[in-house]
Amino acid sequence: MFDDQPELARNAANFVPLSPMTFLRRAAEVHPDRTAVVHGHVRMTWGEVADRCRRLAAGLVRLGIVRNDTVAVIAPNTPALLEAHFGVPLAGAVLNALNTRLDPSSLGFIMEHSGTKLVLADSEFMPAIQAAIAGMGHRPRVIRIDDALGPQGVSGGEMTYEELLASGEGAEPLPLPRDEWDAISINYTSGTTGDPKGVVYHHRGAYLNAMGNVVTWELPRHPVYLWTLPMFHCNGWCFPWTVTLQAGTHVCLRRVEGNAILDAIEAHGVTHLCGAPIVMAMMADAAKARGTKLDRPVKMLTAGAAPPAAVIERLESTGIEVTHVYGLTEVYGPVTLCEPQADWAGKSPHELAMLKARQGVRYATLEGAYVADPKTLEPVPRDGETMGEIMMRGNTVARGYLKNPRATAESFAGGWFHTGDLAVMHPDGYMEIRDRSKDIIISGGENISSIEVEGVLYRHPAVLAAAVVAKPDEKWGETPCAFVELRQGMEATAEELTRFCREHMAGYKVPRTFIFGPLPRTSTGKVQKFVLRTQAKAPPQ
Amino acid sequence: MFDDQPELARNAANFVPLSPMTFLRRAAEVHPDRTAVVHGHVRMTWGEVADRCRRLAAGLVRLGIVRNDTVAVIAPNTPALLEAHFGVPLAGAVLNALNTRLDPSSLGFIMEHSGTKLVLADSEFMPAIQAAIAGMGHRPRVIRIDDALGPQGVSGGEMTYEELLASGEGAEPLPLPRDEWDAISINYTSGTTGDPKGVVYHHRGAYLNAMGNVVTWELPRHPVYLWTLPMFHCNGWCFPWTVTLQAGTHVCLRRVEGNAILDAIEAHGVTHLCGAPIVMAMMADAAKARGTKLDRPVKMLTAGAAPPAAVIERLESTGIEVTHVYGLTEVYGPVTLCEPQADWAGKSPHELAMLKARQGVRYATLEGAYVADPKTLEPVPRDGETMGEIMMRGNTVARGYLKNPRATAESFAGGWFHTGDLAVMHPDGYMEIRDRSKDIIISGGENISSIEVEGVLYRHPAVLAAAVVAKPDEKWGETPCAFVELRQGMEATAEELTRFCREHMAGYKVPRTFIFGPLPRTSTGKVQKFVLRTQAKAPPQ
Repeated sequence: MFDDQPELARNAANFVPLSPMTFLRRAAEVHPDRTAVVHGHVRMTWGEVADRCRRLAAGLVRLGIVRNDTVAVIAPNTPALLEAHFGVPLAGAVLNALNTRLDPSSLGFIMEHSGTKLVLADSEFMPAIQAAIAGMGHRPRVIRIDDALGPQGVSGGEMTYEELLASGEGAEPLPLPRDEWDAISINYTSGTTGDPKGVVYHHRGAYLNAMGNVVTWELPRHPVYLWTLPMFHCNGWCFPWTVTLQAGTHVCLRRVEGNAILDAIEAHGVTHLCGAPIVMAMMADAAKARGTKLDRPVKMLTAGAAPPAAVIERLESTGIEVTHVYGLTEVYGPVTLCEPQADWAGKSPHELAMLKARQGVRYATLEGAYVADPKTLEPVPRDGETMGEIMMRGNTVARGYLKNPRATAESFAGGWFHTGDLAVMHPDGYMEIRDRSKDIIISGGENISSIEVEGVLYRHPAVLAAAVVAKPDEKWGETPCAFVELRQGMEATAEELTRFCREHMAGYKVPRTFIFGPLPRTSTGKVQKFVLRTQAKAPPQ
Repeated sequence: MFDDQPELARNAANFVPLSPMTFLRRAAEVHPDRTAVVHGHVRMTWGEVADRCRRLAAGLVRLGIVRNDTVAVIAPNTPALLEAHFGVPLAGAVLNALNTRLDPSSLGFIMEHSGTKLVLADSEFMPAIQAAIAGMGHRPRVIRIDDALGPQGVSGGEMTYEELLASGEGAEPLPLPRDEWDAISINYTSGTTGDPKGVVYHHRGAYLNAMGNVVTWELPRHPVYLWTLPMFHCNGWCFPWTVTLQAGTHVCLRRVEGNAILDAIEAHGVTHLCGAPIVMAMMADAAKARGTKLDRPVKMLTAGAAPPAAVIERLESTGIEVTHVYGLTEVYGPVTLCEPQADWAGKSPHELAMLKARQGVRYATLEGAYVADPKTLEPVPRDGETMGEIMMRGNTVARGYLKNPRATAESFAGGWFHTGDLAVMHPDGYMEIRDRSKDIIISGGENISSIEVEGVLYRHPAVLAAAVVAKPDEKWGETPCAFVELRQGMEATAEELTRFCREHMAGYKVPRTFIFGPLPRTSTGKVQKFVLRTQAKAPPQ
């Protein structure tokens, strides 16, 4: 009875594509004079930011950018990068926020692969972008961002970002996306097989993960949010959109450093921030040195390898309340958290730390998450012992990998996203990661593919075989540790291999430790990484 | 580039129809032992409630209920009515929550019009339902709910609700809706033209309005929510789903009465409730009599005619923080609120009351709301003076009116939902209702169609003409006031007309005041209701 009446179908009044672009529109409508952005001495209201985003979009359209074109940005956490999260999708284009720590050849690969038509480059990164483009098959247009707090007097680019915005003056308001399934951004993960993979996000997922952040973190209206988490990481876990949904204030920060973070928290009344465990450690150290004790609560989300309990404890003693979440690039950032239970109140600090170090349960906006046998998809028993792979399903799972049908098909096999993270399911239904099937090393919040680093080592003439695993590190969480088997009669020192790696990869990927000797192998010749991990964890002899 | 790759299309891993049914699944998964329902001495956990809802759905399926079938419920705010908000849609069916204050002929009309196949009837309302069915063209099946706090020993119905639940024992888990556009419920509004209209809600809109309630009201995890707002009103403004999204506790209440409300707040640690201004008045009176002063904040949403400032003040002095929202049946309940602005802090109490009495601005989950000329859709100037009609657009606008293509087309003309409410737009972008184009009278939170009441009066042999308007009332907000022109040579007293009305409509619709005399008319013969409204407001002479 309800489906046979054509007048009950969708129409313009009752169906609007879900898009976080509507959050910007509302913030500007309802809170036009409220502070939207703080950046050093720069202050902008929601009315101003919305106008700038509209002009950015219009300027891009005038330069010929059309629907589904890719527009890259390389910048620290500045107003321009925030604006790009709205201005680029408002032009119908797809945002490609580049990791500022990548070397030119990786940047070039990503821009080539994503078909980047135009790049907005902070003046600090102009040399890297120019070097990257020099090695590319096509030449994206370059717009230079002269950030108020960035290097001045840099040349290059066909115009400046402010000139681009000026060119969009007087344009008509821009429409919402035609379809909520339209791509909003592409985020490159270091992946497992050398070359980075481009994860495609859509407007629907970005809208819903922003809602999920608010609902799960109980984010109130008008948070004052400090940008320590890079916006190029899963679009800053969707917080450019999340904070805008609640008409909050984005406090930008070019350099993530302990004292700068505490200064910003104190100066601007910061209420919320996200950051990797390394950022927590920086904050804890700086707070200890300064004797900081905040006079109001500040809430912080952290993810990745569970931060050491000592760091959490030190940070919480300064007045910062830490929540541990878990996610991946493929799911728009965080999608599970260790949601507290009523009976945890009676636990000892040690028991509590054990409970809270787990990856926990899904956001309400992720429709499914469990631990399964990756072949059969049968759930593992809830015994806290049997390992399986974390599987996810829901509207905040990405569309797939661009131009990589095989990886897309593999990761969605059986109608569930295979995270590649190996975990157990506890009797209370909380998940806990035990190992990574993909051998990813997380160092200072950055993913490093062991296979990529191994690939470089294999190119050195003295290297017969190489295997790279994570080595636990108090400061960085993990660092890459390389096990190297040299060719008979050849020589290479750790110093020599470090120099070789520096020439061929971003500095943060270079192994901090080299251990020489024959690699342990299985009978079929596969390197036994679990043996190496144990060795890497052992104290130096 | 992003749309020409078939592997980037929707699949089971990354697309799940939006539905509030997923909230129940998550509450049961993550918080199985947490209290979900309190009803007198009855306590149920989320694990139990989810199991009961699943069994309700399975029981309905066993009785032959299929997708898009309508299932009605008539009950006060009891656990069964709450469970029906999940169990009925989980069976693929459409929930028709009946207004318990309606007379049998209106109930019969609604069940007939909605094609109700089965009705779940609280024992208190068995006589009304049986009388209603006696006058219907088809006979819905009847299941009797013997609520723990309801009348006992009532007979009738083919089985009891608990027997129905028992019949669903051992059934498989039920699937989510095939499509998020599937109907989830139908809600009858008193409408403008005599017969009630059936507003069709879908899963997507119910999901999103629940999110909107959480985001807008900053609803934290685990609220303790008291049910004073009837669940049959716009599905309780989507709070059966909203509270479940945050795994809160639903505190049920059969009788809405000042002392019972305060008792429940004190006994169960209630943190949140919604209710009409009449409920606020009851609470304020009871609190004054008891000298209640709550030791922790309780948040209350209210809607409809703005409550008198004196009532708000009295209620807030007991520790209840009131937020005024506005909405209609056609938009799933509340969709605008008077969101506070930073500069309101410096206003005088009188200025503040004026600012807060407005209907305000849209929820983030409603994509558009403004005041326009209903013909041209041009916005009225933001002068706080020019009247226009409030227009809305977004994903929480209903699918339309069942079997009423004309009303649906009219209300969605030009791609905006025409609310029928006449308002002005203030310079700050906040809307304020000035009049109702539809002449609806809101009495004790219930909508009364003046045209319906006039229709009955016209049937009295002595009545030549009748016009019914709202008369302001301290207790009820408004009451119907009838202006009656008698036929020459005929007589009828107010007592006689009251008796006549009682025979033909629900008690709450019967005019409280009758004024006899010739009706003022325009040159074309239309009754000038604005003149009558002024007269109705005047104190008795």
